Amino acid sequence: MTPLEEVTAALRATLGADRVVTDRQELRTYECDGLAHHRVVPGLVVLPRDARECALTVRACARAGVPFVARGSGTGLSGGALPHAEGVLVVTSKMRDIVELAPRDERAVVEPGVINLHVTKAAAAHGYYYAPDPSSQQICSIGGNVAENSGGAHCLKYGFTANHVLGAQIVTPDGDLVELGGRAPDTPGYDLLGAFVGSEGTLGIATRVTVRLTRLPESVRTLLAAFPTTDEAGAATSAIIAAGVVPAAIEMMDALAIEAAEAAVACGYPRGAGAVLIVELDGPAAEVAAQFAQVTAMCEENGAFELRIAGDEAERALFWKGRKSAFAAVGRISPDYIVQDGVIPRTALPEVLRRIGEVSRAHGVRVANVFHAGDGNLHPLVLFDAATDGETDRAETVSGAIIDLCIEYGGSITGEHGVGTDKAKYMPRMFTGDDLETMHLLRCAFDPAGLANPGKVFPTPRLCGEVPRRHAATDPPAAAEIF
Amino acid sequence: MTPLEEVTAALRATLGADRVVTDRQELRTYECDGLAHHRVVPGLVVLPRDARECALTVRACARAGVPFVARGSGTGLSGGALPHAEGVLVVTSKMRDIVELAPRDERAVVEPGVINLHVTKAAAAHGYYYAPDPSSQQICSIGGNVAENSGGAHCLKYGFTANHVLGAQIVTPDGDLVELGGRAPDTPGYDLLGAFVGSEGTLGIATRVTVRLTRLPESVRTLLAAFPTTDEAGAATSAIIAAGVVPAAIEMMDALAIEAAEAAVACGYPRGAGAVLIVELDGPAAEVAAQFAQVTAMCEENGAFELRIAGDEAERALFWKGRKSAFAAVGRISPDYIVQDGVIPRTALPEVLRRIGEVSRAHGVRVANVFHAGDGNLHPLVLFDAATDGETDRAETVSGAIIDLCIEYGGSITGEHGVGTDKAKYMPRMFTGDDLETMHLLRCAFDPAGLANPGKVFPTPRLCGEVPRRHAATDPPAAAEIF
Repeated sequence: MTPLEEVTAALRATLGADRVVTDRQELRTYECDGLAHHRVVPGLVVLPRDARECALTVRACARAGVPFVARGSGTGLSGGALPHAEGVLVVTSKMRDIVELAPRDERAVVEPGVINLHVTKAAAAHGYYYAPDPSSQQICSIGGNVAENSGGAHCLKYGFTANHVLGAQIVTPDGDLVELGGRAPDTPGYDLLGAFVGSEGTLGIATRVTVRLTRLPESVRTLLAAFPTTDEAGAATSAIIAAGVVPAAIEMMDALAIEAAEAAVACGYPRGAGAVLIVELDGPAAEVAAQFAQVTAMCEENGAFELRIAGDEAERALFWKGRKSAFAAVGRISPDYIVQDGVIPRTALPEVLRRIGEVSRAHGVRVANVFHAGDGNLHPLVLFDAATDGETDRAETVSGAIIDLCIEYGGSITGEHGVGTDKAKYMPRMFTGDDLETMHLLRCAFDPAGLANPGKVFPTPRLCGEVPRRHAATDPPAAAEIF
Repeated sequence: MTPLEEVTAALRATLGADRVVTDRQELRTYECDGLAHHRVVPGLVVLPRDARECALTVRACARAGVPFVARGSGTGLSGGALPHAEGVLVVTSKMRDIVELAPRDERAVVEPGVINLHVTKAAAAHGYYYAPDPSSQQICSIGGNVAENSGGAHCLKYGFTANHVLGAQIVTPDGDLVELGGRAPDTPGYDLLGAFVGSEGTLGIATRVTVRLTRLPESVRTLLAAFPTTDEAGAATSAIIAAGVVPAAIEMMDALAIEAAEAAVACGYPRGAGAVLIVELDGPAAEVAAQFAQVTAMCEENGAFELRIAGDEAERALFWKGRKSAFAAVGRISPDYIVQDGVIPRTALPEVLRRIGEVSRAHGVRVANVFHAGDGNLHPLVLFDAATDGETDRAETVSGAIIDLCIEYGGSITGEHGVGTDKAKYMPRMFTGDDLETMHLLRCAFDPAGLANPGKVFPTPRLCGEVPRRHAATDPPAAAEIF
């Protein structure tokens, strides 16, 4: 028996045949996540029903030396859930219980397969919601959000997933169930929970997550402002932040992104706009009213030629529909596209947008810009037609050049989509060898055999024995030698 | 030469004799931090001037196998900076440069010895401040705040130190300088920065810290409300939070704490109060005005018999003077005292306070209560006279019983003072053996020789070889055996 056959037989015996997928056709449906141009058919798919079954699955993998990859809803955009051909894909879609809903304590405890928006739906009756809102929130899972430390439009004010996860039960790569974090603020001991959130499946699998619930704001007001170009929209963004206003969201779309959104969902944005901003304020009514007047004035002062204020929830939803459908919408104006994700300092926005334009023109590749302007998180959409010779390569060149720009301006290679399969190669450009080796120390402490989502995040797969250990006390170089 | 003599000689040679303290009288001044009943004279004190000198010091310790302990201003209340008799105390008081102040980017970069309040003073001219405000903020250091993940009265709204640290350069226990975190939000790779903040000196020493600056609020309003007993003050606290108001601070003091504060600083709190609340709101003026009216009404509805509103900054400072001096003030009404620190769910406040009263009466030991009511972080002050036979033991029994209550009610053994020397023994009551071993994995990955602040945080000093490694792939128990 191969190691994978061993695992298959063991899990059929312990979990039952219905938890285990071996049919080639069925396996093929799991071959990619949202990064659709990377595809690998998994060796085996397992669908555990609870934490115990999840731990048994990982334990079986550890025993046989078989790699495993966790997958939630498969909406990730960096290939973090790309399967392993000789490994097990652990799919959490059967773990969808909301275990506890405690709005008075501002807490909910959920299984990892629970859909992001379902937490909000369950909490809304009590006046609460779950704040992090990826564009995919109608289908993405909390477990996937934890793995990728997902963001969303409203993370400008409310922070990323890491700011809303209070505790987790996880399966370690050797199949133990342990608790990280807890209900109390500032839990004593190491904050391993913080390290686990965003570790992209390389430290284990979350089997139960305690999330913070946020009180629904008393008031929400949403503004759509149209500008001649992205320069004016960028200047308005800077002015708003500099004034000390922290909107729940400031989103920008450029002309090409608007064109795509109109074609797809007829959102009716102002005609002739070179850029639109969606600015949303939420909080106590008195605060929102006062700051909304400020924001409106700053948009006008910075060249907005049309302002629309959402009069009701339907109109607000229409403003957001254009933005939230933007990624998929570019399919209407281009056969293929790459969703890029990078961060730059907010103050560099106009300059970086101009340079993206230069790169785009130089290579004859169109780039639509959609982004979280408030925190400088860009999502350039690089458009191409794979059927035309050389276009795929040119698109990848442009996409890579955009990441180079982010690094050049002191930003980051990913804002919220994660490193995954896609960006591991850029890690050495953001971190020194020493910094990466320090991360490897943690990886190797949890997973010396390297079975948890191998090949993701880190640029060069290394065996843990190859990672230089922190020098033991008996054998470091002399102090005088190090500088 | 003993290992310590080796280190002394090496550091005299590389750093110069003026960085190294060996005089017994001088060493004695470092024998304790704010947990004054634990005292150990350090084997050697080193005062590095910069990151390089700090790294050389740690490297020399690693080479000789000598333990080291970092110390900032020595104000910690859990004995986290208690020296090691055969080890080196690395004091950061000569590393006090504010390296960079970038208010437009809402960032400052500081050395670890910089005093907490000095960051605020430097930023204030630009309209910013550093939000975490321990009561000791006039003397405590940023490095110490990072080690302990310090809180403060305003952490109810603004979060702990971990929420305000964006990056750190650290010396690892083998003397390497590495960077954790960075300037961009959601830095890719593992969030080792999060694990480092609050690790109490067991993972290395911060040599440079990038902190977030927060914009000074447009408006601040402060209320002092007097209640007949802590029950009514607790009910008012619950009502405020339940209404969705998030004050910058809600602080409570009981009758005995008020008596002490009056004796020490004549703060002139309302006579006859069984409890006072200080409620502070900050933010946009429109929001503060509206919510302040709500808070005032809720205090009245819940039995406040006197309300005072700070009319100017001087009056506000007087309200806070009583609270911020409360720990030291109990020295006026008791020769000795223990400052306890624990967390309970906010909703359990009245019940736990009643039970603390019962324990206090049962043992004939007075307990003054001062606490961050908004987040359920208790600071009971256990009063005793060490000169009276048996009183010290009784005080320690009461102090321990209070921690037992915190655990019983699902809270935590420490809210913001850390585990240090004082509370390591309680760790196994909050965490399972598996949870603690998972923490040990990180410790041993960073510090296999166990030289970084040994004896703190973890209950039983263990060699890293004794920590069961995560099972290698070849040798775990069979999957069917584990449940």
